[in-house]
Parts: sequence; structure tokens; C-alpha cells
Amino acid sequence: MSTLLDKANELAQVLKESEEFTKLQNLHNEINEDEVAKRMLDNFRNVQLELQQKQMQGQEITEEEVQQAQKQFELVQQHEKIMQLMEEEQRMSQLVGEVNKKITEPLEELYAVDNTEQ
Amino acid sequence: MSTLLDKANELAQVLKESEEFTKLQNLHNEINEDEVAKRMLDNFRNVQLELQQKQMQGQEITEEEVQQAQKQFELVQQHEKIMQLMEEEQRMSQLVGEVNKKITEPLEELYAVDNTEQ
Ligand SMILES: [Ca+2]
Ligand SMILES: [Ca+2]
Repeated sequence: MSTLLDKANELAQVLKESEEFTKLQNLHNEINEDEVAKRMLDNFRNVQLELQQKQMQGQEITEEEVQQAQKQFELVQQHEKIMQLMEEEQRMSQLVGEVNKKITEPLEELYAVDNTEQ
Repeated sequence: MSTLLDKANELAQVLKESEEFTKLQNLHNEINEDEVAKRMLDNFRNVQLELQQKQMQGQEITEEEVQQAQKQFELVQQHEKIMQLMEEEQRMSQLVGEVNKKITEPLEELYAVDNTEQ
């Protein structure tokens, strides 16, 4: 099965050399070098992560926490570079999603046949 | 970004022609043609799916349901072809997992840098 992993490596290489990845990488580096932007983004992500974890564990989220998250979001929304990074992250996430969809197409087809046969 | 999706198509093609996929496909077809095996597998999967959904929705799972699932599993365990299918499904799932890991390696590396910088 080395061919499949070879192909996966090729794909990773193409991804790494893509315009989308380069943009994402550059924005990352720029934000990492900007202490204020870095802290703002870290704070925002930590709050998001905490809320997500609480939600997954079925814990109650207080109104104060929702307001805090909202405030953090309003802050990052005003930071153009952070917004660009988030847009690029979303684009990358979509791209990886499309790639995954393509790759698992043979499996989708196999299981789709099952459904029509039922 | 057509190159990335071209590569993904190539990968899907390699997957489709792989020994692993062929085995999985053959076992699928054999079970689909065997009414008893097909019904046994469908029942097992439906019970599994129901329990999973209940668990995700935080609903209580009764002891009776656990026993029913256990019984269905003991039934399919005695069916060699179904067990083979499940093994091949697990192998395929691992393979797709490895492929995904390879593909997202550039992104992992990008975010790993962030952590060491913090
Ligand atoms: Ca089938
Ligand atoms: Ca970085």
C-alpha cells in the first residue's frame, strides 16, 4: 500500500506549495511577530475553546461568558490581519474538505449502492 | 487550485484500485447477495446507530438495550463473512486516517510552530 501513501505525500507537497497555504503561512508569521495581535488572537481562541469544551461536556454557559466571547470577537473583528487569517483558515478548511470528499468518493459509492439495494 | 483536486482524484483512483478496496468491495457484494447475512448486518448496524444517537443526545440507555446490542454482536461474531467485512472496514478506516494525516501534515507543522513560540 505504499503507492497510496506516496500519493498522499504528493498531495501534501502540492498543498504546501499552494497559494492558499503560502498566504496562510505568511499571515501566521506576521501575527506571531506582532505581540498585540498574537495575544488578541490567543485570548479569542482560548475563550472559544473553553466554551466549546463546556458545550461538549453539557456544562451550562453563563450569560457573562457569552458576553465575554462576544466582546473578544468584536475586538478581533476590528483587527484586519486577524480577520484575514481567519478567512484564509476557513478557505483552507474548505479546501481540505473538498480533498477529503474526493478521496472518500469510492467509499461513498460503495455504501451508496447498499442503500439503493435495501 | 485545480492541481490539488487533480491529485485528490489520482489518490481516489489509487484507493479504488487498491487490494484493500477490492477486498472490501467483494465482501460487500457477497453479503448483499446473501439475504440472511445482509439482514443480520443491517440489524446489527441499526442497533449500533440507535445506541450511538441516544448516547450523543445524552439519552439514557436501558440495560435491555445493552443486552440486545450484545446479542446482535454475538450473532454477527459467528458469521465469518461479516467479521471479515468489519475487519476490512477497520483496515480501510485506518488507511484513510493515515492518508489524512499525511495530507494535513503541512498544516500540523504550521500550528506546531505556534505552540513552541508561545
Ligand atoms: Ca455495496
Ligand atoms: Ca506559525
